[in-house]
Amino acid sequence: MIRAVYHAVTGEPEKLARAIAVEETVEVPEALIDERTNREIVGRVEGTERLPDGRFALRIAYPTDLVKCLPDLLSVAYGNVSMMEGVRLAGLDLPPEVLARFRGPGFGVEGIRDLLGVRGRPLVCTVLKPRGATDEHFAKVAEEFALAGGDIVKEDNNLLDATQGDFERRVGRCVEAVARANRKTGRSCLYFANACAAVDRLERTAEAAIRLGAQGILIPPLLLGLDVVRDIAARHRLAVMAHPAFSGTFFEDRRHGIEPGILLGTIYRLAGVDISIFVNHGGRFNYRREECDGVARALRAPLGRIRTAFAAPAGGMTIDRVKEMASEYGPDTVLVFGGAILGDSAGIGKATEACLARVLSLFPDRPGARA
Amino acid sequence: MIRAVYHAVTGEPEKLARAIAVEETVEVPEALIDERTNREIVGRVEGTERLPDGRFALRIAYPTDLVKCLPDLLSVAYGNVSMMEGVRLAGLDLPPEVLARFRGPGFGVEGIRDLLGVRGRPLVCTVLKPRGATDEHFAKVAEEFALAGGDIVKEDNNLLDATQGDFERRVGRCVEAVARANRKTGRSCLYFANACAAVDRLERTAEAAIRLGAQGILIPPLLLGLDVVRDIAARHRLAVMAHPAFSGTFFEDRRHGIEPGILLGTIYRLAGVDISIFVNHGGRFNYRREECDGVARALRAPLGRIRTAFAAPAGGMTIDRVKEMASEYGPDTVLVFGGAILGDSAGIGKATEACLARVLSLFPDRPGARA
Repeated sequence: MIRAVYHAVTGEPEKLARAIAVEETVEVPEALIDERTNREIVGRVEGTERLPDGRFALRIAYPTDLVKCLPDLLSVAYGNVSMMEGVRLAGLDLPPEVLARFRGPGFGVEGIRDLLGVRGRPLVCTVLKPRGATDEHFAKVAEEFALAGGDIVKEDNNLLDATQGDFERRVGRCVEAVARANRKTGRSCLYFANACAAVDRLERTAEAAIRLGAQGILIPPLLLGLDVVRDIAARHRLAVMAHPAFSGTFFEDRRHGIEPGILLGTIYRLAGVDISIFVNHGGRFNYRREECDGVARALRAPLGRIRTAFAAPAGGMTIDRVKEMASEYGPDTVLVFGGAILGDSAGIGKATEACLARVLSLFPDRPGARA
Repeated sequence: MIRAVYHAVTGEPEKLARAIAVEETVEVPEALIDERTNREIVGRVEGTERLPDGRFALRIAYPTDLVKCLPDLLSVAYGNVSMMEGVRLAGLDLPPEVLARFRGPGFGVEGIRDLLGVRGRPLVCTVLKPRGATDEHFAKVAEEFALAGGDIVKEDNNLLDATQGDFERRVGRCVEAVARANRKTGRSCLYFANACAAVDRLERTAEAAIRLGAQGILIPPLLLGLDVVRDIAARHRLAVMAHPAFSGTFFEDRRHGIEPGILLGTIYRLAGVDISIFVNHGGRFNYRREECDGVARALRAPLGRIRTAFAAPAGGMTIDRVKEMASEYGPDTVLVFGGAILGDSAGIGKATEACLARVLSLFPDRPGARA
């Protein structure tokens, strides 16, 4: 069974739980549910308990057979429930039969570390932006960052391209610049190209990214569709970094939506995400520490044979938060610094070095060494 | 310019408006924005006004060039803003250059009426469910409904298919049953097959639906991705009925998210939706009348050369609400009755006839006649 837990504002927990169990599976009035349908298809209410905050936890088990693909899972777990007031998906436990339907991250934590040759410490990532800057500028930023020992260059979510030609020109120049730096340093800084495009252009975008030498793509699952990301990740040898754009409505109202750990952790892993960016607490956005920790936990938790993924706290992080983030999230973390590295008065190289020095002071083991 | 209006909870409207204008376009600290970037790329704050409820309306104009495709539009209008507390997208005005990039509904109100040969009145739709019933049962329901004069049979959102074979068997039998009824009645009842599948199966699903004789598909844009729907609609001669599953997080918190009319109206039309299902007020879900009216208005409002679409209020509607819904939403409406027709003690045929009789008493002109 697929076990979901909903936290709900209600005076009638049993009644609401049954309504959800029916809504998510057969969506008909009770009078139209015969005994066999009820036994074989309708969700089963396994219990309800009062929570300390006065809401109720509703535990519902759905037949495993209902879920053959990712849209099925989203539909069963939170499709029509999303339209019910005061109901939040707070727990999701998937049986081996469902997990077996998903490949998960193609690289995962270990695979990304293999590409990079970096073990035992958080990775440092910077962002190519703002939109409007020249390819030369981006290539120079990428090269300086890579020369200074940075681990991942990602293109900004806002680098929306008019044409495939624009995309290929930028990615080509930047990958070349990073490769040049890698030859000097002997390291393997990775390049992630922005794959936010119309879905009928995604295939060409992914193929071009590979052909040009990028190791990964930055992609916004909620803007494009979660199953689009799963599909593209499954068919291309590209590491996937997920951007949280358009995800905020799931989290804003804490009495509704989906726990961040379930969506940006568990479900993103099913969608093949290797690195999940989320907005860290204390940055430009108002997320809570326990929510961020929940995402990081879900990215590393056992999930059948599905690989673990990197947590990537971001959103206005400054270099003086390295220590705090490293101790909060541990080594399997990608620290994303956009403005903090790009805008440092000492220059991109010095800022990157300072950032890495802090990381290495906290995780001194085998910097840069292959396992 | 693309003009967006945000309604926001804030004590510093100008500051927040500028933060949004930067966030949605370049996402860097102010210090990194040079004069040219600010002029050409960053959104322009056109004004802020206090609303009667104490919030502020923030008016921001984004350069038209930023948006080449649907994911771009979603990203610019509400990508990172979705992660800001208390900010709702309340208005969206698109210039002709942006609208020209979208085909919109392939049929629209007039095209669907052409298929059906029904003018000047709301259409009556029923739903094949529950999941678990046999194909024979569904075919029989579809046939009875079509014989009684029903306009559209749609497959339920919960009819998730294990295999392409299951899908084709059901659709084949049901289309045949509806065609049989149509030969008897001389009418053209339409059949919409459920196209909620893994995205890599959608193409085959759409092709099979056409080959088997379905006139349309039921598809959940938020479960699959809005641009997936646009892409599939653009490449196949199938009318598109959108199901609102997974859309609820945009609407639950009225101080956050997106106005239902913008998402389920304007944006759905850009995505090629011919019939937009939304949960009506006073049904199983708690939506407000003004929100539902906003969706209906946006579906019929001028939008460049993009066709108008049908409003389809649903979610536990009963036949005694026909008069109320017809007068509220007018003739370009699809009235969706699932349980109310399937569970009527008089039988599906009688329930359909009763429903149509009410519609025809309100819109007596040329029932069933071609224009």
